[in-house]
Amino acid sequence: MVESWSFLDTVESNFRPLVVIELAKGTKEETIEWFTKRIVDKKANGGAQLLIKPLVTENGAENIYLVGASHLRLLLGAESVGLVKECNDNSMRTFTYSSRKTFKDFADDNHNFLTMAECQYIIKHELENLRAKNEKMIPGYPQAKLYPGKSIVRRLLTNGILVQIFPLHDREELKKLRHSWYGRVKVGYQPLDDIRCYFGETIALYFGFLEYFTFALIPMAVIGIPYYVFAWEDYDKYVMFATFNLLWSTVILEVWKRICAILTYRWGTLLMKRQFEEPRPGFHGVLGINPVTGREEPVYSSIKRQLRIYLVSLPFVCLCLYFSLYVMMIYFDLEQWALDYHKENESNFSSLMLYVPSIIYAVVIEIMNRIYRYAAEFLTSWENHRLESSYQNHLILKVLVFNFLNCFASLFYIAFVLFDMKLLRQSLATLLITSQILNQFVESLLPYWLQKRYSRRMKKRMCSQKTDMNLSLADQVNMEKEMGTYLGTFDDYLELFLQFGYVSLFSCVYPLAAVFAVLNNITEIYSDALKMCRVYKRPFAEPTANIGVWQLAFETMSVISVVTNCILIGMSPQVDALFPDSKMDLVLTVALVEHLILAIKFIMAFVIPDKPRDIQMKLARLEFESLEALKQQVRAFQMQLHFLLIHH
Amino acid sequence: MVESWSFLDTVESNFRPLVVIELAKGTKEETIEWFTKRIVDKKANGGAQLLIKPLVTENGAENIYLVGASHLRLLLGAESVGLVKECNDNSMRTFTYSSRKTFKDFADDNHNFLTMAECQYIIKHELENLRAKNEKMIPGYPQAKLYPGKSIVRRLLTNGILVQIFPLHDREELKKLRHSWYGRVKVGYQPLDDIRCYFGETIALYFGFLEYFTFALIPMAVIGIPYYVFAWEDYDKYVMFATFNLLWSTVILEVWKRICAILTYRWGTLLMKRQFEEPRPGFHGVLGINPVTGREEPVYSSIKRQLRIYLVSLPFVCLCLYFSLYVMMIYFDLEQWALDYHKENESNFSSLMLYVPSIIYAVVIEIMNRIYRYAAEFLTSWENHRLESSYQNHLILKVLVFNFLNCFASLFYIAFVLFDMKLLRQSLATLLITSQILNQFVESLLPYWLQKRYSRRMKKRMCSQKTDMNLSLADQVNMEKEMGTYLGTFDDYLELFLQFGYVSLFSCVYPLAAVFAVLNNITEIYSDALKMCRVYKRPFAEPTANIGVWQLAFETMSVISVVTNCILIGMSPQVDALFPDSKMDLVLTVALVEHLILAIKFIMAFVIPDKPRDIQMKLARLEFESLEALKQQVRAFQMQLHFLLIHH
Repeated sequence: MVESWSFLDTVESNFRPLVVIELAKGTKEETIEWFTKRIVDKKANGGAQLLIKPLVTENGAENIYLVGASHLRLLLGAESVGLVKECNDNSMRTFTYSSRKTFKDFADDNHNFLTMAECQYIIKHELENLRAKNEKMIPGYPQAKLYPGKSIVRRLLTNGILVQIFPLHDREELKKLRHSWYGRVKVGYQPLDDIRCYFGETIALYFGFLEYFTFALIPMAVIGIPYYVFAWEDYDKYVMFATFNLLWSTVILEVWKRICAILTYRWGTLLMKRQFEEPRPGFHGVLGINPVTGREEPVYSSIKRQLRIYLVSLPFVCLCLYFSLYVMMIYFDLEQWALDYHKENESNFSSLMLYVPSIIYAVVIEIMNRIYRYAAEFLTSWENHRLESSYQNHLILKVLVFNFLNCFASLFYIAFVLFDMKLLRQSLATLLITSQILNQFVESLLPYWLQKRYSRRMKKRMCSQKTDMNLSLADQVNMEKEMGTYLGTFDDYLELFLQFGYVSLFSCVYPLAAVFAVLNNITEIYSDALKMCRVYKRPFAEPTANIGVWQLAFETMSVISVVTNCILIGMSPQVDALFPDSKMDLVLTVALVEHLILAIKFIMAFVIPDKPRDIQMKLARLEFESLEALKQQVRAFQMQLHFLLIHH
Repeated sequence: MVESWSFLDTVESNFRPLVVIELAKGTKEETIEWFTKRIVDKKANGGAQLLIKPLVTENGAENIYLVGASHLRLLLGAESVGLVKECNDNSMRTFTYSSRKTFKDFADDNHNFLTMAECQYIIKHELENLRAKNEKMIPGYPQAKLYPGKSIVRRLLTNGILVQIFPLHDREELKKLRHSWYGRVKVGYQPLDDIRCYFGETIALYFGFLEYFTFALIPMAVIGIPYYVFAWEDYDKYVMFATFNLLWSTVILEVWKRICAILTYRWGTLLMKRQFEEPRPGFHGVLGINPVTGREEPVYSSIKRQLRIYLVSLPFVCLCLYFSLYVMMIYFDLEQWALDYHKENESNFSSLMLYVPSIIYAVVIEIMNRIYRYAAEFLTSWENHRLESSYQNHLILKVLVFNFLNCFASLFYIAFVLFDMKLLRQSLATLLITSQILNQFVESLLPYWLQKRYSRRMKKRMCSQKTDMNLSLADQVNMEKEMGTYLGTFDDYLELFLQFGYVSLFSCVYPLAAVFAVLNNITEIYSDALKMCRVYKRPFAEPTANIGVWQLAFETMSVISVVTNCILIGMSPQVDALFPDSKMDLVLTVALVEHLILAIKFIMAFVIPDKPRDIQMKLARLEFESLEALKQQVRAFQMQLHFLLIHH
């Protein structure tokens, strides 16, 4: 039945499965029929005009469907999502079907003009924009209400009729990508363009940032090593190192913006127009009129949301912060106990015991971070934000504040209340190294184990039905649908953010932190790559032009680190010794230096352009062209008009 | 000859003179003929399609021409400059001729739909965009080279053939405006909308800012008065005042952005698309290809410009700064001498003499500022910036840095090197009051005298030929062409900026400064209004959406004032007395408070939205509509295409 519709539009041999739709077991037949009809229906009739085919396995139909689209449909979809591609004259332009011939590598028979990730993104976009017409509910499910303009897929998802939608892996491409990414031991850059073609811009940009950040940390690490090796403790050397670090962190964050602009210009996302943001899937409310769109859709009072934020979320976050500080105080009691124990019975064991509280504390911090993360997600989702971006911002703010305090409060306490530099160095090292080992375990050893299991299962299947290509596809789908879902780059950026904190906040006390960070990041690249390629379902590509709020988060951290480092240097006995007569002069000098560094940082951030000159020129050229086109249009219209006015 | 062309397009009775063009005496006949022909020529032939008429006076032709345009021409011009007007449904939309009926107050016979200032802006825009076709030079002037696309008016201006272009005053409207603005003694707001209709958005926004700023200073002034009256010297009261001031200055700057958004939304400029920026009139270079536009135009190497900036301008500015500091040291010598004199022979005269050095220094500062201004203009123009915006930014940076140092260096020196609070208060008062009196003299008494002369001359003429309406127009033109040219809001903003510095940098030492600032600003509003209406030629309207770089300048000043005020409070004997044992604790407390206030400022600036919620909603609605329109367009095209593909 479904296939017969598809046949209307395409010959079966052309069908290339791109996206998998899994419906709940026992979904009513009329629902399936209605849904698939809507998917294949003509655009003119309000359908998505895609191709859909049930997956046939040895166990019979499993309510799994493969979605594809004709080549023409994908090109038209590329236009409606506003894809930006490279032209024959090497400039980047928004793709339109009418100007398709001017684009690089375009040919009517070249089905690789759009990458598979782009095709899947287009299909996802088209599916999500498949909207209810006059249906009052989903056929067969009277409790699943619809209203004109409601996204059908989102309603199916929130009602549990649709279990999941995910894009298929391309095993050939993935193999090639794996090989060039982490398959061979080599020193060099990651194949960012290939990653972007396969996984989309958001993920490629994360790996780009991870790589850039690792390279950027190397100078800090290199300068930090001799301090450790030669146990330098001179005042001037420390000041030099810290000053270099503080200014360097501004430079790297500014330069990243430029590199990001270069990357996203090449990928076309820098020029992509923002699409109008639809309400996020979880958003609910009573049906009302949206004042912006004038459409009927759920509306939720902003005052109610504010009340939830300020009367529930805010007190909860404060409570969590208090709890985190309470745990910290327990840690200090433990630390004291370990110290007493060490003093009473001095032995190798007791000196080892000195590290135990820190290690326990580091583990507890990690656990608290993870539990808090769930709580924050639950709360933010309960706040019922209309837009995904607003949801994300509130979630990130909650998580950042808590994680910052949770990870660094004890270090601040040691540094600025206890004034114990030795303990600070030891705690910092223990926290940093423990959290890195924990993360590597969760992200690298676990994936490795999963991969083992995966390949074992795969081999078993392959042996039994190796020859049948169609069954092999069914196998692939069945295997991929069981894989975990990659939840986005949030946790990966968060990890980098905390690492940046460990490296920069107390850099003048523990220069070796940068060395550990670099080592960790190198393995991180490999483990994250493994995770993307082997452990998780392929994620949908998400076009993006920058790393968003993380840029601000890193910049804020670098400002805070100026303050902490200046105080640390001011407190060091070497500096103290330079001002034997007057502590006043010392404090004033430190304050002056701090303000100077802050001023230089702001001026540097202001002076370094966010985009390289050639990108600026290219953007200016595009803007000029679009203005000219508009002018031409106006002029042509005016001439027509004048002609009419004169001749009538 | 010229008139006969104009007749082609309109009946003479319809001609309303809007803009005056003054050509140099003795301009060749063929040049005039060619220029006027180009102005009246059809758009299709590359002309401006405006109306032009020579001004006939009793002395015969004086090479003065009046430019106007037909009603239709102005409406089409409004579309090409991208004017935004109010629609019947109260939303603001970009005006297009085809949708003209949907706009408020539009009627084909309503010639007041566009304000006179808008008409003049359109004519200016059309004249500036009158471009050379294949002419190699201006006829009659072989040295005045042209190339295709060069603005003819700009070439005529730089070659001195065109003396000036200015818009005519509308005496009826001006009289009404004068009356409602400053004609009657009243307490109330300025008629900002009327000012905007008559003078355009840039000037209206300046007056809006001046008024807002005055109101915003009132709370500071009110709180400051009791400190003076009761001679409060308590620590806590000072701290309260200073803290209030510092946070208040952030609030007022953030709230201004919102008010600015409300004003410019109502005026339509918030939505106006930025036009592509042409090279500024003074820009010169060898003919080359502009990489952005692909057109042939003068190109000047960026490296040469950088060399000029860093090897000439920068050292010159540094030299000026050094000189300014040198003058400051002379002032301190004078001050010392006056003090000695007072000590030797104590008398009323000698105690008066104590103020003389400050007054002399204030006058010298004003003179140096004005001389430096010319030097900065010369240098920046010599740097040969391609764009007016880049020229303005470099000029403003140069002037701000010098004026800041010139005005405040002595105060900083007194406060943080001499630690003499009494002298600081005295110097601050003398500098502030002297500079305000000087400014009021230059801007208010001088205009008053000029206005007297103006009206006397006017009366003399009016008596002799009162009846002839045409001659009255000639009189008006002749009188207005002799009036001074208003050079933009730069100096007015600069004055406010320096005043803001006097008020906020040392506010905790001299709370009365805000009182003087408020008093000054009230008279400033009137004197500036007088200046605009009576002293200067009417300026062309300039659409703008904000006060530009001045917002940043004021914000920077408010950050610097946090630092200075915290130090001042920390140095006060009352605060000193609170920490009798440890100066360390004092300094640390002050540093902590400073960082707290700075952090609160940044968070406040981040949290307060730049646009009020209803403006945000309106903007979102417009964006949504334009995206929807685009989508409709794409969809319609795609349906056509599908139809074609299916049926062929």
